[in-house]
Amino acid sequence: MQTKVVLVVRADLGMGRGKIAAQAAHAAVAATLANLNSQNLRAWLEDGQPKVVLRADSQDQLLAIAEEAAAAGLPVQVIRDAGRTQVEAGTSTCCAIGPAPEDTVDAITGELTLL
Amino acid sequence: MQTKVVLVVRADLGMGRGKIAAQAAHAAVAATLANLNSQNLRAWLEDGQPKVVLRADSQDQLLAIAEEAAAAGLPVQVIRDAGRTQVEAGTSTCCAIGPAPEDTVDAITGELTLL
Repeated sequence: MQTKVVLVVRADLGMGRGKIAAQAAHAAVAATLANLNSQNLRAWLEDGQPKVVLRADSQDQLLAIAEEAAAAGLPVQVIRDAGRTQVEAGTSTCCAIGPAPEDTVDAITGELTLL
Repeated sequence: MQTKVVLVVRADLGMGRGKIAAQAAHAAVAATLANLNSQNLRAWLEDGQPKVVLRADSQDQLLAIAEEAAAAGLPVQVIRDAGRTQVEAGTSTCCAIGPAPEDTVDAITGELTLL
């Protein structure tokens, strides 16, 4: 079973592609640092860090997915923007779910579409 | 002096925004893992992980910037894509420069524009 990280990014904020990339990078770094000692992180790095970037269309949808993933025992990092550019400070822009086995992540995020 | 990471992403590959986000995330994770014991990483995390996403318009430009940064003693991670989607395997898609003090990064990347 491959291990993966899903990055769920809000598509409703009008963020440009550079801003989206920075937010996704923030989430991936947070997921890495929060799981440094986990076997799933090691497996994920050995697999070449597979990542999928999916879309949420509202803050409610983003936070609902994050809560569902946390309730299922998956590692979750929600990123709130510092608000220097493009969005208001404290806005939840994206989350990372994983690293975790692919099927456990897909069980939560399988309904979401690619960003 | 603030510490930052610059992510330089190729704009000439026709990558979609999700693919760009995944590549930038890969570079940021690589920069984090390669500098886990550095004081610059700690300072960067304390600052809230400031990141700027810039564009390169060719592989030559990307690799020239990466080489220049490495020659200046900055941490550099060049990401080559596994080629599962959108680009050929082994294509250099982006690089991370830093974490390092802002002025040392800007000295190398100051001519590049935002992605």
